[in-house]
Amino acid sequence: MGYNVITVSRQFGSGGRTIGKEVAARLGIACYDSEIIDRVAEESGYAKSYIKEQGEYSEHRSWIGRALASSARGGDLSNQDKLWIVQRRIILDIAKEPCVIVGRCADSILSGREDVLNVFIHADKVFRAERIVKVYGETDVAPAKRISDKDRRRAQYYKYYTDTKWGVAEHYHICLDSGRVGLEKCVDIIEELYRS
Amino acid sequence: MGYNVITVSRQFGSGGRTIGKEVAARLGIACYDSEIIDRVAEESGYAKSYIKEQGEYSEHRSWIGRALASSARGGDLSNQDKLWIVQRRIILDIAKEPCVIVGRCADSILSGREDVLNVFIHADKVFRAERIVKVYGETDVAPAKRISDKDRRRAQYYKYYTDTKWGVAEHYHICLDSGRVGLEKCVDIIEELYRS
Repeated sequence: MGYNVITVSRQFGSGGRTIGKEVAARLGIACYDSEIIDRVAEESGYAKSYIKEQGEYSEHRSWIGRALASSARGGDLSNQDKLWIVQRRIILDIAKEPCVIVGRCADSILSGREDVLNVFIHADKVFRAERIVKVYGETDVAPAKRISDKDRRRAQYYKYYTDTKWGVAEHYHICLDSGRVGLEKCVDIIEELYRS
Repeated sequence: MGYNVITVSRQFGSGGRTIGKEVAARLGIACYDSEIIDRVAEESGYAKSYIKEQGEYSEHRSWIGRALASSARGGDLSNQDKLWIVQRRIILDIAKEPCVIVGRCADSILSGREDVLNVFIHADKVFRAERIVKVYGETDVAPAKRISDKDRRRAQYYKYYTDTKWGVAEHYHICLDSGRVGLEKCVDIIEELYRS
C-alpha cells in the first residue's frame, strides 16, 4: 500500500526540517512545521513563542518532576498538557490529507496508520554545531551546549507524552545520518520511498 | 569520498543477513557472516558452534555479572574475551578490501573510518516471528521468545564490548525497517547509497 503522510523527527541542527520541506516540495504536498504553531495559537490563544517552546520541549525539570508537579496540582492539566491536547488534535486533522509533519511526536500520534512513513534524521555533533551557527547564527551559548540542551528536552518531551524513547531505530521506518549521507541524498531516498 | 565497506547490524529475524548478502552480490564484493566463524575457528581452535554463540551473544548473565566474574578470575581473559580479540583482528583484516560484514560489532570495530557505511536492519516482532519460522523452522521455544532472547543477548554483547547501545539510530548511517520497507527495497537503497 502507498504512503500518504511522512513524519520527520530530527536531532537539533541535523537539517531534518529542511529535508522535510524539500521532500514535500518535490511531492507537491504540504509541509507542517511552524504552521502547526500558528494553528495551535489560533485555537488556544497562547502566544506563538510560548507554543514553540511548550509544544515540543519539556520544561527544565525531569519528566518525573513534572509528573509530581502535576499530581501536586491535584491532577489539573498543566499548560503544556493543554497544548499537547490541542496540538494532537490538529495533527490528527492535518494528517487526513497527504503531508509532511516535522517533529511534535507526530510519529507516535499517528501510530498504527499503515500509510504513514516515519523518518528520523540525525547527525554527529560537529556537523550540527557548524550547521546551527550557519542557519540560526551565534548566541551567547556554545553550539555544543545548545544542541545537547535541545535534544535532551525534545527527548524528555517525547518520553513524557508517548512513553517511548526518542531516537531508537525501531520506532522509525527509516533513520538517516544527514551529515554522512548528505541532505540532498536524504531527500532523494525519502522521496523515492514515499513514491514506491 | 566513496564507501568500501558496509557493516550490517540486525535484529534477529529482520532479514539483515539476507539483505547484506544480496547487496554484496549486486556490488560484486565479498560478504562475511559465517565466513568469520570459519576463520575464527581456524585461528583459535574452538568449535564453530561454540564460536557462533560466543562471538556475538553474551552469556546469560548481565554484563555486570560478567565483569565481576572476570575480576573473580583475577583479571584473566574469559574464552569470550579471547574470541573477541581474534574476531576483532579478523574483522580489521577483511575490512582492508571492499566487503559487507554482518553483525559482530563490526560497526564499532571499524569506527572512525570514513569509507565504512553502517547499516541497522530491524522490523516489528510479528514480521520477524513469521520470518524465523519460515527461514529457520519451528523449535520448542515460541518465536516471540526466540526473538527477544537473541536480541537481548546481542544487545548485551554489544554493550559489553563496545560500551554503546545497540539499535540507537545515531550509531548508524542508515536504519531501515525491513518489514515495512521490504527486503528488496532495503537492498536497493543500500546499494544506491554505497555507489553514490
